[in-house]
Amino acid sequence: MKDNIRIIVAGPRGKMGMEALKMIDKQSKFSLAACIDRKNDGQKVSDIDGLPDLDAPIYTNPENALMETEADVLLDLTTPEYGYKHGKLALEYGVRPVIGTTGFSQDQLDELTRLAEEKGIGAVIAPNFAVGAVLMMQFSKWAAKHFPDVEIIEKHHDQKLDAPSGTAVKTAQLIQEAREPHHQGHEEEEETLKGARGADIDGMKIHSMRLPGLIAHQEVVFGGLGQTLTIKHDSHHRESFMSGVKLSAEKVMDLDVLVYGLEHLLD
Amino acid sequence: MKDNIRIIVAGPRGKMGMEALKMIDKQSKFSLAACIDRKNDGQKVSDIDGLPDLDAPIYTNPENALMETEADVLLDLTTPEYGYKHGKLALEYGVRPVIGTTGFSQDQLDELTRLAEEKGIGAVIAPNFAVGAVLMMQFSKWAAKHFPDVEIIEKHHDQKLDAPSGTAVKTAQLIQEAREPHHQGHEEEEETLKGARGADIDGMKIHSMRLPGLIAHQEVVFGGLGQTLTIKHDSHHRESFMSGVKLSAEKVMDLDVLVYGLEHLLD
Amino acid sequence: MKDNIRIIVAGPRGKMGMEALKMIDKQSKFSLAACIDRKNDGQKVSDIDGLPDLDAPIYTNPENALMETEADVLLDLTTPEYGYKHGKLALEYGVRPVIGTTGFSQDQLDELTRLAEEKGIGAVIAPNFAVGAVLMMQFSKWAAKHFPDVEIIEKHHDQKLDAPSGTAVKTAQLIQEAREPHHQGHEEEEETLKGARGADIDGMKIHSMRLPGLIAHQEVVFGGLGQTLTIKHDSHHRESFMSGVKLSAEKVMDLDVLVYGLEHLLD
Amino acid sequence: MKDNIRIIVAGPRGKMGMEALKMIDKQSKFSLAACIDRKNDGQKVSDIDGLPDLDAPIYTNPENALMETEADVLLDLTTPEYGYKHGKLALEYGVRPVIGTTGFSQDQLDELTRLAEEKGIGAVIAPNFAVGAVLMMQFSKWAAKHFPDVEIIEKHHDQKLDAPSGTAVKTAQLIQEAREPHHQGHEEEEETLKGARGADIDGMKIHSMRLPGLIAHQEVVFGGLGQTLTIKHDSHHRESFMSGVKLSAEKVMDLDVLVYGLEHLLD
Repeated sequence: MKDNIRIIVAGPRGKMGMEALKMIDKQSKFSLAACIDRKNDGQKVSDIDGLPDLDAPIYTNPENALMETEADVLLDLTTPEYGYKHGKLALEYGVRPVIGTTGFSQDQLDELTRLAEEKGIGAVIAPNFAVGAVLMMQFSKWAAKHFPDVEIIEKHHDQKLDAPSGTAVKTAQLIQEAREPHHQGHEEEEETLKGARGADIDGMKIHSMRLPGLIAHQEVVFGGLGQTLTIKHDSHHRESFMSGVKLSAEKVMDLDVLVYGLEHLLD
Repeated sequence: MKDNIRIIVAGPRGKMGMEALKMIDKQSKFSLAACIDRKNDGQKVSDIDGLPDLDAPIYTNPENALMETEADVLLDLTTPEYGYKHGKLALEYGVRPVIGTTGFSQDQLDELTRLAEEKGIGAVIAPNFAVGAVLMMQFSKWAAKHFPDVEIIEKHHDQKLDAPSGTAVKTAQLIQEAREPHHQGHEEEEETLKGARGADIDGMKIHSMRLPGLIAHQEVVFGGLGQTLTIKHDSHHRESFMSGVKLSAEKVMDLDVLVYGLEHLLD
Repeated sequence: MKDNIRIIVAGPRGKMGMEALKMIDKQSKFSLAACIDRKNDGQKVSDIDGLPDLDAPIYTNPENALMETEADVLLDLTTPEYGYKHGKLALEYGVRPVIGTTGFSQDQLDELTRLAEEKGIGAVIAPNFAVGAVLMMQFSKWAAKHFPDVEIIEKHHDQKLDAPSGTAVKTAQLIQEAREPHHQGHEEEEETLKGARGADIDGMKIHSMRLPGLIAHQEVVFGGLGQTLTIKHDSHHRESFMSGVKLSAEKVMDLDVLVYGLEHLLD
Repeated sequence: MKDNIRIIVAGPRGKMGMEALKMIDKQSKFSLAACIDRKNDGQKVSDIDGLPDLDAPIYTNPENALMETEADVLLDLTTPEYGYKHGKLALEYGVRPVIGTTGFSQDQLDELTRLAEEKGIGAVIAPNFAVGAVLMMQFSKWAAKHFPDVEIIEKHHDQKLDAPSGTAVKTAQLIQEAREPHHQGHEEEEETLKGARGADIDGMKIHSMRLPGLIAHQEVVFGGLGQTLTIKHDSHHRESFMSGVKLSAEKVMDLDVLVYGLEHLLD
């Protein structure tokens, strides 16, 4: 593994960006090459209130950042729109993009894939950087082959407005693809109170709890003869995403194609 | 405490009845005085296949059982209809009834209460003999005064047809009585998949999981600032009811009124 | 209940103190009368970096704070040494102390108790302000009467150096007092790896888990025939203590004696 | 897949054997060819009290069973000693052995492996037939690559005499092999009560709970920055082993070598 990976961070003042700067600061194998920010052009990271004491320059023009800096990786933690632009530029300049987003269209993915291939360098697009959540989904896919009866409970603080969570839906969809076609539950079951049995995806029931004092939790419960198998992820801080960012920035150095989804880096 | 409590068991061949005979057999302070059964009149318990090796006589006529036997307690594990008849008869004969049922009308309860008072002897009617479940409900009532935000998850095997479980509904009703009027949940929360947020009792959400490999489980989760408090009961065998039967048969000896609900014996 | 309780906070810049100021600011029934701080005499709370925008004056001399302010409650979140001094002074000035500490000697408690009695006003000393943790302990005492077989698992982040936690030890001691003398566990059990069965208090085993990603969690597991009953507290932020501070500041107004322990306020 | 797999069961009156007969009876793709038993030679399964109503003959001499019956699989649920003999004989007769045991020596395994190879037919030796437990171990190996900080809690009824459980030790050993060399826990942590931190395998702590009302449960908890990932297996009946027996009997038909361990059949 390369022992000094120089990283440009786009979006340094966002919540994820700030965590990323802290992480880069702590990891001896990483160094911060520059930041791309909507403002603060020409300043240093250490000049900005709330950011770590790092010497790297800030650019508002991403092309300048790529031209004037020696960098290996561009880590984008902005929006899908900017992520796409930054990713494309980075590849053109021979810098490997690592982009956290769920928002790319298939066309955008195809184009970035083609570009990475042309340049023969790696790229990582990750809808979810939480290694624990991604492993939970991978284990669930595997378990569902042997235990096709499964339900999901996700628990979040009561400021979360939508239910069920995106991760719960994604987990159910992955299980649906992985398991043999299967009818689950008793034909004659009845709700005496509407909603008791939860939401339904392919017969899998999903239950969403919302309470103060909860943060972000999910349990996938598999039932079989005489036994249950449960996979549970509890996350309480966005630093939980940094394990995936770190892994991606390391692994992208050894790739020569674009990889979509952290799960492909978790062998 | 009386050191030999002589018990008549009504319904000895039912699932609960068989557990009760085993329990009486094991407890040195209890002895089996007789059984009341729809058949096998004149036989001994030890004559019947599957019952413990006990000498007590079997009667089909409950009045004969009460007249011809020296008994302290009549434990009824039959049906509401027979339970009522047996309870009334027992009180008339000065034998203290312990009856497990949810099915009595208010009139029936009132009459048994009056009879117990007249005779000045104890009686116990218990909708639920599982000490653990009853404690869970008592703790929940208490906790709800301090943590009014609460949801319930109950998990059962997939042969259970109704959802939510009776215990979950009962728990929610007790909480509703105990807590201050309270609106819980975010005003603007939205289900993107119907049913995700579960059934609703007074704003408390109830979630019912049904899977092979589960038996009978309930979690009551209370959320507050920076913390959650969870009360969980897992039950895997009907012997779990015997702790409540045993307690009732002991405590009824010291009562001189009818008590409805195991919770009043659990100080 | 009094609809405006005026509070003096001692220790406003500590972690607990800062949470308390935020809580007082949010609760309409509370107002901040003054702060007692080792420095910043003569300034206002709003002058101090990191404190809420509140107008109350800061005193380094507690006696001046008590003399020059109209206050109902003195909330002390400092050290046992200062807590004792502040508590005594407050009582002398007719102000009700609420003090969070485990560090008072019996002599100190006796003296404060006597002073409160003389003045005929309330006082609260609380070793633990987390309502959820205190309820967990109260439920455990109760459950242990019916389920004398019990073990405790506590889980904390791996920066916690001591094991088991104070709360786990306290819980076990309370259970020991509450349950009938009881030998638990199998006579012939054997550890094939030393320590597997955990620490021991009166036969109760206590297990301490330490991992990154954990915060502060405890489970008390009661086992009985065919069932288990579990009481679990998960806490992730010191704002969890504020429920107990709030409760104490309210209830102390209706007391005319000193109360030691939040449990006596949690009926 | 072959649509009728004819199975000889050795050990039909043992607890596992009886479960296996029930399972074979229920599965349309399986049929019972014969049983090998220490007694009841010449009788039919249906003649024996407590066994299912199946027509298959019972042999005390395993060679006769193999000679006189058309069979595809020999399922051995006896002892290591007999399992080895039966396995060898079966392979000689071209019948695929499926043997549940932890007790074979390396020499015995080598010989059976060689015999299977010579005959070009499959064989399965499984130390653990519980698919859920085997998946838990596989997931744990995988998770440990990304979350090297891990502890294990196993919970069993209080009639289990040894601690920790074999499954917990096995899980820890597999994790030790899978993860990078890693020092876990704080250097300065201290037990104020001996045993609190559990048993130790390569720095991983193992905690064993023993209570009435528990059956057989294990949790493997992985901790990372801001998150934990938990894999939990709860088993309450030996029918949980039948999923692995069923899988082995199916998969052994497509194998042409000996496979040791159910995990190699769980892709």
